[in-house]
Formats: sequence, structure tokens, C-alpha cells
Amino acid sequence: MDISELGEFLLIDRLARIVAVERSDVVVGIGDDVAVLDNGGAELILAKVDSQVEDVHFLRSGISPHQLGRRALAINLSDIAASGGRPRWALVSLALPTDIEVAWVDGLYQGLCEEGNRFGVAVVGGNMARSSQTIFVDVFVLGQACREDLLLRSGAHPGERVLVTGHLGDSTAGLSLLLDPALSVGDDERDALLARHFTPTPRLAESAVITRLGLATAMIDLSDGLSSDIGHICERSGVGVRLWAERLPVSPAAHHVAKLTRREPWRLALEGGEDYELCFTAPPAVVDELAAAVEWETGTPVTVVGETLPADAGRWLVLEDGQELSLEARGWEHFKPRG
Amino acid sequence: MDISELGEFLLIDRLARIVAVERSDVVVGIGDDVAVLDNGGAELILAKVDSQVEDVHFLRSGISPHQLGRRALAINLSDIAASGGRPRWALVSLALPTDIEVAWVDGLYQGLCEEGNRFGVAVVGGNMARSSQTIFVDVFVLGQACREDLLLRSGAHPGERVLVTGHLGDSTAGLSLLLDPALSVGDDERDALLARHFTPTPRLAESAVITRLGLATAMIDLSDGLSSDIGHICERSGVGVRLWAERLPVSPAAHHVAKLTRREPWRLALEGGEDYELCFTAPPAVVDELAAAVEWETGTPVTVVGETLPADAGRWLVLEDGQELSLEARGWEHFKPRG
Repeated sequence: MDISELGEFLLIDRLARIVAVERSDVVVGIGDDVAVLDNGGAELILAKVDSQVEDVHFLRSGISPHQLGRRALAINLSDIAASGGRPRWALVSLALPTDIEVAWVDGLYQGLCEEGNRFGVAVVGGNMARSSQTIFVDVFVLGQACREDLLLRSGAHPGERVLVTGHLGDSTAGLSLLLDPALSVGDDERDALLARHFTPTPRLAESAVITRLGLATAMIDLSDGLSSDIGHICERSGVGVRLWAERLPVSPAAHHVAKLTRREPWRLALEGGEDYELCFTAPPAVVDELAAAVEWETGTPVTVVGETLPADAGRWLVLEDGQELSLEARGWEHFKPRG
Repeated sequence: MDISELGEFLLIDRLARIVAVERSDVVVGIGDDVAVLDNGGAELILAKVDSQVEDVHFLRSGISPHQLGRRALAINLSDIAASGGRPRWALVSLALPTDIEVAWVDGLYQGLCEEGNRFGVAVVGGNMARSSQTIFVDVFVLGQACREDLLLRSGAHPGERVLVTGHLGDSTAGLSLLLDPALSVGDDERDALLARHFTPTPRLAESAVITRLGLATAMIDLSDGLSSDIGHICERSGVGVRLWAERLPVSPAAHHVAKLTRREPWRLALEGGEDYELCFTAPPAVVDELAAAVEWETGTPVTVVGETLPADAGRWLVLEDGQELSLEARGWEHFKPRG
């Protein structure tokens, strides 16, 4: 059996069983946004690696090296944010074909450093290897978190609300504009959507408010798409979920692209990945306070988009007309052909 | 200018200037075997990433996934050893073509875990991405070290001795056997050299003795070849060096391959990379004690192979007949065509 038959997530489950460890210095191993490690210091260590592979995550002709550097770091910082931590250090592993320009690598590092400087992260090391054809950028981020601030995928309970920061679907809408330059939208809309696609903002400020209040129960960042990522919270927490299609926050610009590409806006929000917004759960009684605090302190909107259910109640999407659709993971999964 | 004109090491120097940081929590940044970080705990954090790229570091048909897993972790553990630290955790980032067998990935992880278990390292996370053609295996290792045990490339002084553990050139000799199956050596020799090539042993036990005694001044692991790696100690420490060709420890099996392939044995020892032995410096008065302690406690031989000089005295290799050759870096460098 090859890995495309199994798919990314079942493969990860399988490998997690091979590496299974019971060690007091491993607070969280494979299966969450970050690994959580205890070196005996006052705070826990968070560790995360994520990659950008040419022709899979980006096209060399389609993104500047500066944008790629910012993006490669940002997507890792997003995972630290999703865990309630603060990022501190990054290492960068590159595999590059020999015909890459030095200026290209300069640009990549300038982007990495610019993004790092925005969020207090120092690039402290890395590796450099030759690759026959493809650019491969691997970023490894270390952060830290107080034990009581840690927010995992596993903390949700039935009867809670599901919240998201910002708008969903912008990144996919931006990608649509790249793939079909004939799509006619205004310059402002195009710029905004492309920026969301190329250089997503890790929601560290929002995470800091959420963890400080201590009211959220589980959190994940939206990298593969809400329909896929909420499934990780369901699996890890042992809950079901009902999402409300009409509540999904879609920006006017993404609405516009949805209309031009004849897709329902909620599909962009649900299935489009790479928004790097936060998705979190909290008891109904504290939702208003939590949302208001994040909006007040960061300017980022927070929207209630669903509710958690007992695990045996399943996973559902409720459309505007009341119709309930089974919520399958329709987001991005590596290896798996799209069904 | 493309990166093949600049070469790996000048490119790294260039990037180190872009990311240059002055932060109290970054004890050592880019430019040593590992990054050394201070999170306020009792010990410092060591972080390292190294990759194995298909068709550059290995051939898919030439190495079993289990061997590749062991090797990918071992080469990182070697850097932790070279810094005087103890490894604790690893993260693994893979980019895989979709037609890879699940059994192959299982084997890779089993190799990673076997190597990890030998040295007390837990695999705690990773990433999984699709690649169009090539296998990329990136391993990030975290370790720790007491501040006083830290051994960097920068601690050597003129007038010290240069020592190495084990034998040099075995890995290259093993590679020669792989590249030319017609080379006629005994089965035992073949097995030993291939094992040294495929699954090098990180010299953690040897490093533990060296750091405990506190007599060494600088250390590096031999990944690119002694002629190249000793240069890093020279640059960072501001010293020159004189190596004695006839003292370079070459195993009988590697001697045999050198003869069959019509190379001087010292060339294998000097220019062959991937031995993952330790190279360290110490004052002449303590060299015997240091070597004896490592040999006694680990069974690994330690050999004095040269001496450090003032920086302006240059870098030299002395042949058996007294002839002095300028010691150019003849080891492995990514991007750079071999001169």
C-alpha cells in the first residue's frame, strides 16, 4: 500500500504509535499543534516544524523569496499561537538547487528576519543542502508557555461554542485570483486577498488575550481548512460538532471571488485552507466576554460559528435553509487524492 | 550570481550577517555545530537541524528506510555530542512523493526510534508534506548542556594538540564499495565499512567523558571531512593548524580500499566526509590523560593528529617525507563544484 491510499492523517496516527513514548519530559508528543516539552525550567518548551515545498505549497514564479520567508516562519508561529505559547527561536533548513540566485536566498532570509522581528523571534541556526530540482524550506520554531496557559486540541467538552478569529476563505480566494488572472476584482480587493494568501498573520496577539483570560478549553490554527481542522479537535477531545454555514465569517472580497467562481461562500470558509486563523472552544456563558476582549485588544473580529456536541451526535454543517450536511473533512490533506 | 559560485560556507556566512542578533537568550547562533539557547532553566538548550536529501545524501535503492532513519537521527546527535551536550528530543519533517510505500515510512520511523532509544531521545513531533519526486528527511534535535560543559568551535588556542576519535575514512571507503561492487574485499571488511557509512555512531559516550574532564578547548564533529571541518575550528578560534598525514587513524579495512582505489590512505581520512567522529583540541600537557580516559571508558581510540598554530602561520598538512602541503578544504561542500 502506498501513502496516497492511506492519506496524511492516518499515516501520522500510524507513526505516532511507532514512536509512542511515556516520558515525564514529554508533556505532549505527536498529534497536537506543537510538541510540549519539560526541561525542568519555569516554563514548558514548545517545538514545531512545518515546511514549504516548491510546486506543492508555492510556485517559484508565483511568490517572492521575501514573501516565502515571511510565510514559512508565520505558519509555524501560528502553531505556537494555537497552543497558547510565545515563540522565541527559529532554525531554518533549506534544500536548494544549485542554480538558485544568491539574491533569492538573501530575500528569503530577509523575509524570515522581518517576520521574526515582528514577533520577537530570533533565527539562530539552520542547515543548507543541495537538492536536485526542488526548493524545500523547513522551519523549526521553539517557544515557551506557562503550563496553565497551554491550550491543546484535547480540551473541548460537549455543549461549548466554537469560535474563530478573523475571516475564513481569504487565502483560498487569493489563490483563485492567482490561478485565474482573468477574474475581475478591484485592486484593493486583489491586494488584500493576495496578502492574506502570501503572508498570513500569525494570531499571536489574539492568542495572548485568549490565554490570559483562561476561558477557552481547546484551540487549533486553521491551516488545512475549518472542516478538516475542527475534526482534529473533535477527535482529540472526544466531541461532535455542529457548524452554522451562515455564521462563517467571509470577507466582502472573498464573497466577491466566491460569486465570480460560482462557489458558495461557506465552501471557501470551510474547505479553503491556509487562513491561519485560530479556532477555539469555550463554554457559552463566557463567549461574549472572550470575543469582546480579543476584538477590543487586537481589533480582530471573533465569531461564534458552531457548538460542540457529544461525540456520538456526529459532525454536522447546518445550511441557511436548515438542511444538515455531514461534515466531512474537505480541507487539504497531503498524499490523499481529493474525493 | 548563483549559489554554486558562492558555495555553501560563504553563503552561510552571508546569511549569518542578515540574521545577526544580540540577545541574551541566544548564547550561540548561526556558525557552530548547534544553536545554544537560554530559556532561564538550569541548563542551556541545544538545537540542531540536519537533512538527508534523496540523490544527494542517499539513493533510495541503496539504503534501507530503517538505515536511513537511524542515520538521519545519528548525524544530528553527533552535533549535540560535538557541543558537549546530551540529546533529548527530536522532530522529523518529511516530504514524500505519493507513491512511497507505507512500509517504507514505517521502516524509517522504526530506524529513527531505534536510534533514539539507544541514546535516550524521544521523537515528539514532526511534519508530513507531499513532494513531487524527491524524498526529504529533515531531523531537528533538541538537547541540553550545562554552561560549563559547552564545547564550541571557538575555544582553541595556538600550541594545542588536535585529537580525533575512532578511525577516519571508513565512511568514504564504504561508499567506494557501494559505487564499485567489483572492488574485492572480505565480507567482514565490507560489512564493517558499509555499517560505518550507513549507520554512523554518534560519539555521545566519548563526548560525555571529554566534557566531564573539562580539559578540551574546542570540538566539532567530522561530517564534511577533517580538512574542511578543522578549518571551522581555525576560523572560529583564530588559529592555524598543522596536521600529520601519517598520524591520521585509518582502519585496516579503509587502508585496503584505499589501495584498491589507488588513493593515499590519508586522503580518505582527510577528504572523506561522514565519519561523524569527534575532532577536539587540548593543551599538550593533558592530551595523554584525555585520550586514555576516553579509550578506557568507551573503548574508542583517540589519536593526536596535529597541532594548532598562530592564525598567521596558516594551515598545513605534513606528509611522511616532511613535505608540507597547504591544507585546503577538500571535504564536502554543498552547491560548490569540486575543484
